[in-house]
Amino acid sequence: MPRVRVTLPHHSYDVLIEPGVLARLGEKVGEVAPHRRCALISEKQVFDLHGEAALASLRSAGFEVCLATPELGEERKTLATVARLYEPLLDAKLERGSPIVALGGGVTGDTVGFVAATYLRGVPFVQCPTTLLAMVDSSVGGKVGVNVPQGKNLIGAFYQPVRVVADPLALRTLPARELRCGLAECVKHALLGDAALFEWMESRVEALLALDAGALTELIERNVRIKANIVMQDEKEQGIRSHLNLGHTFGHAIEATSGYGVLLHGEAVALGLVAAARASELAGRCAAGLAERVRALLGRIGLPVRSRLAPLPQLLEAMTLDKKVKDGAVRLVLLDAAGAATVVRDVPADVVEQAWEEIRA
Amino acid sequence: MPRVRVTLPHHSYDVLIEPGVLARLGEKVGEVAPHRRCALISEKQVFDLHGEAALASLRSAGFEVCLATPELGEERKTLATVARLYEPLLDAKLERGSPIVALGGGVTGDTVGFVAATYLRGVPFVQCPTTLLAMVDSSVGGKVGVNVPQGKNLIGAFYQPVRVVADPLALRTLPARELRCGLAECVKHALLGDAALFEWMESRVEALLALDAGALTELIERNVRIKANIVMQDEKEQGIRSHLNLGHTFGHAIEATSGYGVLLHGEAVALGLVAAARASELAGRCAAGLAERVRALLGRIGLPVRSRLAPLPQLLEAMTLDKKVKDGAVRLVLLDAAGAATVVRDVPADVVEQAWEEIRA
Repeated sequence: MPRVRVTLPHHSYDVLIEPGVLARLGEKVGEVAPHRRCALISEKQVFDLHGEAALASLRSAGFEVCLATPELGEERKTLATVARLYEPLLDAKLERGSPIVALGGGVTGDTVGFVAATYLRGVPFVQCPTTLLAMVDSSVGGKVGVNVPQGKNLIGAFYQPVRVVADPLALRTLPARELRCGLAECVKHALLGDAALFEWMESRVEALLALDAGALTELIERNVRIKANIVMQDEKEQGIRSHLNLGHTFGHAIEATSGYGVLLHGEAVALGLVAAARASELAGRCAAGLAERVRALLGRIGLPVRSRLAPLPQLLEAMTLDKKVKDGAVRLVLLDAAGAATVVRDVPADVVEQAWEEIRA
Repeated sequence: MPRVRVTLPHHSYDVLIEPGVLARLGEKVGEVAPHRRCALISEKQVFDLHGEAALASLRSAGFEVCLATPELGEERKTLATVARLYEPLLDAKLERGSPIVALGGGVTGDTVGFVAATYLRGVPFVQCPTTLLAMVDSSVGGKVGVNVPQGKNLIGAFYQPVRVVADPLALRTLPARELRCGLAECVKHALLGDAALFEWMESRVEALLALDAGALTELIERNVRIKANIVMQDEKEQGIRSHLNLGHTFGHAIEATSGYGVLLHGEAVALGLVAAARASELAGRCAAGLAERVRALLGRIGLPVRSRLAPLPQLLEAMTLDKKVKDGAVRLVLLDAAGAATVVRDVPADVVEQAWEEIRA
């Protein structure tokens, strides 16, 4: 089975990627977190699609399962939801060794991960991502947390899972719009660290959109490797991990000013990638043409590459609340070429402003 | 200046203990977490006593200070309080490098520590304990968190401070009842790991109660060394750290069933220590007489050694929700002698029941 090992100083774990592995979830959890009880927490809609298989598998592996199927979504990724999710765990008297399994997309993984990080000061956490975005990005690396009205993911923790179990077949039930969002993060990974992957994606767009299982499995594995390599170098985002924010300082500001839920995260990231690529050109870091190439690939995928945006001052204000601000100066991840990113401090204001206008509809 | 170094695999920090050090708080914070901004969070009543000195010191060290002085207390050690404490930090746009200083007792340190652990996924945290209990116990070791109706400290994290700054002179304004609570934890430390300290305390009760500065400084340093040594061996409480729960499984059950705030934590611990010592005798682990010796010292300190308690079934139920339960069996820390503790699994029910009756008024 394709697996990617994430090795950190204090903890290591595997990301398992295999069509059909969801039916063996219980076995895969039991291998790394054997215990009498576990919790399975899944967004209701995801549970309706994949939950019974996961539940049956956990039970047949011997777990007594505490099940919670809350309504989730970006607007419910809050401390209030976290507080409600503690209740069934407390009622079931889940103990320190009891694993908590998050079955769902990025919102589920982030929210449930924060629950796992803080319930009894931390219990074993298993990510079982069911969206492409969660498989290639949010399930790997230990960033968990919730939103506050002031911004996304401002409350949270670095808390690594004990295992990630990704089943590419789960993507067959994923809405096309969400598949495209996952592909946006894949384009980001390719841009920041793997020019060959960027070219491979340009050549396989149709197969990926058609859910070709082989293409998806390869895509996930290559992306997880990029993500894992960065996390292994810099778990706590003190250096190179910030490269993963390519497009995200723009993207988060778009999400914050348009209201959560208008655009999906991956759509905001797609817009942010175009803006970041354009800013890279304007700042003289990369050759002209990269922004158009990025825009073309994202456009073929079906992602937005221009959008109605809030007025510029609001966008700039939202950028300064982003966590990636250091000592008040806006830092951006810019590109030297496809496959090569750099953190640039004090990006000139006119570059930032022109980059914003590049993606305004 | 007396200092105790806490060395962990991923992080090390000093506990500074010196009469008058509070007036140099800013310098001591700046040495380990230099930044343009910081936050000072202090319970209102503590701030009225020590806050201005701390604030002036932080400002004169160059910090722009975000100040919050909430009403705290065991019944406000909740997720709701944590959520409210994020607000001034978000408003002040505190960044990842900005230290958060907790000035106050254990409740303040635990609550603010959880805020520091989760704001922007963790910012530098400085403990500035102003109670004896916080100086010798809760400020060292990284356990932070809040209560839920189901029990104390069930939500939290392991999050180490970057420094602990303890000023024994701050104890001059401490209510006598709280001083006695701190001494209860000191008796606990002595019992679980330092017979000589137990004897020293027997000989210095009067000096300690009279707030003799030399005696208090020695007491704090010796206790921090015990606590630090245990934490260094076992940060995440997978082994010997559980010795620190001596008396606490009883104590937590007392607090949970009597309603938070009726007894102070240290008072519940004092009762728990007598019960644990008696259980040790009944289980045949230590010689008869230890419980009486413990009761005598605690009594001289002025701590409760008998109390009105909830009915036995409620107490036993409350014990099983304690985090120290593993696979449903009650584990207790028992004593083989003064200075020597052991974790005992499956303590016989009649031993537990008789130990409870020993402290019932």
